[in-house]
Amino acid sequence: MKKLINAPDKVVADALEGLAAAHPSLAVDLENRVVTRAEGPRPGKVGLVSGGGSGHEPLHAGFVGYGMLDAACPGEVFTSPVPDQMLAAAKAVNSGAGVLQIVKNYTGDVLNFQMAEELAADEGVEVRSVLVNDDVAVEDSLYTAGRRGTGATVFVEKIAGALAEQGADLAAVAAVAEEVNARSRSFGIALSPATTPASGQPGFTLDESEIEIGVGIHGEPGRRRGPIASAARLAETALDAISDDMPLSGNVLVMVNGMGGTPLIELYIVYREVQRLLAARGVTIARNLVGNYITSLEMQGFSLTVCRLTEQFTELWDAPVQTPALRWGR
Amino acid sequence: MKKLINAPDKVVADALEGLAAAHPSLAVDLENRVVTRAEGPRPGKVGLVSGGGSGHEPLHAGFVGYGMLDAACPGEVFTSPVPDQMLAAAKAVNSGAGVLQIVKNYTGDVLNFQMAEELAADEGVEVRSVLVNDDVAVEDSLYTAGRRGTGATVFVEKIAGALAEQGADLAAVAAVAEEVNARSRSFGIALSPATTPASGQPGFTLDESEIEIGVGIHGEPGRRRGPIASAARLAETALDAISDDMPLSGNVLVMVNGMGGTPLIELYIVYREVQRLLAARGVTIARNLVGNYITSLEMQGFSLTVCRLTEQFTELWDAPVQTPALRWGR
Repeated sequence: MKKLINAPDKVVADALEGLAAAHPSLAVDLENRVVTRAEGPRPGKVGLVSGGGSGHEPLHAGFVGYGMLDAACPGEVFTSPVPDQMLAAAKAVNSGAGVLQIVKNYTGDVLNFQMAEELAADEGVEVRSVLVNDDVAVEDSLYTAGRRGTGATVFVEKIAGALAEQGADLAAVAAVAEEVNARSRSFGIALSPATTPASGQPGFTLDESEIEIGVGIHGEPGRRRGPIASAARLAETALDAISDDMPLSGNVLVMVNGMGGTPLIELYIVYREVQRLLAARGVTIARNLVGNYITSLEMQGFSLTVCRLTEQFTELWDAPVQTPALRWGR
Repeated sequence: MKKLINAPDKVVADALEGLAAAHPSLAVDLENRVVTRAEGPRPGKVGLVSGGGSGHEPLHAGFVGYGMLDAACPGEVFTSPVPDQMLAAAKAVNSGAGVLQIVKNYTGDVLNFQMAEELAADEGVEVRSVLVNDDVAVEDSLYTAGRRGTGATVFVEKIAGALAEQGADLAAVAAVAEEVNARSRSFGIALSPATTPASGQPGFTLDESEIEIGVGIHGEPGRRRGPIASAARLAETALDAISDDMPLSGNVLVMVNGMGGTPLIELYIVYREVQRLLAARGVTIARNLVGNYITSLEMQGFSLTVCRLTEQFTELWDAPVQTPALRWGR
């Protein structure tokens, strides 16, 4: 295993110190492992908290800032954060308007965020949760009952974050978050595995010309293995899996996400294919993201996420955002 | 070779189509392979052109936009663009105030940009060039006489771009570009090689626990090979190489750049170490970038670039920028 680390058990702690040093806009509570906005909560604003295992950077800490998250709770690599972290986050960002937890559907995350919700209630903090479960590849998987939560998390955090910034109440912010999840689908394809620092071994193995079709963000098995194919063919595979599950029409928001080890030039090639396929089906990509937004350490491959836009979604997507990983309009 | 491409000889063309589709702020001349700002040149503003081999994304096309480049000329992967591209770029962005070419020091690039300068002069377009040669690893290398041009290119493009945006004349923009290069140094370390689509084979090979110390952005050999070490030790190796060449003091701008296949979480760990080492030496990181800014396809590793800031540099660094890969302040 060759990694730029000091020791496997120091990865998250060291990275959080680096994050704190690099971004004065963030406040990093190293003891509780909670990343918040440096300026603190704004009175009357719903607080948005997310979190999950580390190794998916820039998710979630890279999305803390104006117009998106108020706090992120990073767990160990590919491991859920603990309820105490989430509770600390909820208390740190609560300004009286309540807190929305954005939870990717993995059993550990779900249980821990649920416990945090109860602990927060005991302390008089109103917390609600929205579950993200957009990955159409498989029902149930390693670590998950039901569908896995993947790329739609970025859309939920941005769109619900914008609505919260505008002063909407907790019920409205939760409702739009649920609606974004309901209108979004994802599908991923891996060309290579990832190695967690703790294990030191690849999470799975692939032959020289083999790929994992429908892979999860922790390397969970997908639908099948097959030979590497052209970008055009792989884009079609991902898009068909999505559109078979949710017919597409009108305006969509598309993310072609890199899994961490894929060159940007390849992601643009995939985006070109997705754009052509959608255009041929009469679907317009009104907004897009191309790059590394929800990664799996150094895994090579991509995931495609498509969200059927509403007018409200588009407006909220375009609203100003100022985070380390996503910035525009302000 | 597993890559998200359609065919090795279509990589750059397909990626440019994807880039064009993803970014309405860019105009992509697919025939000439020139990427410019969609809104065209602003009368009286010096035009900034850069370019080089593809595979270093987001460099250079990702830095085209307000406050940075006016045009980028992407060559084939790891291959210089041709003079006709550069000439087309110069003509496209010239608004009468002349054009500055920002050239990384590789023999092919230098010769081709020089030829473009002459061709442009024949057509009445005043073109000057600035050479970036910040890599302290080696004197002379594969493809290079003298030092290689690497990470400082991003700093030169940002700072000179800001000055050009403010309306400075060609001599002043060229002078600041040269000064940024003169005050910047870089050093890179590779944990794994990259494979160009055309060759289908890794550019070099490393043993399971071996790294290349002082590597170039095309995988050119560095100073030596050695065993993988802690992030702290590798950060020190890179920083020492830089500070041995250029003593550091006061405020610096630091970039911890990923080579394309390295997880962001590891780059933050390296940044932490660089920050601690510099603090112990009484040097302050006043500004920073952590992420993939000048890559080598899917190579794993990092490069460190340090620029000794002046007040003018800091002010120009902070000036608004709106490009696909770098955005703030507007």
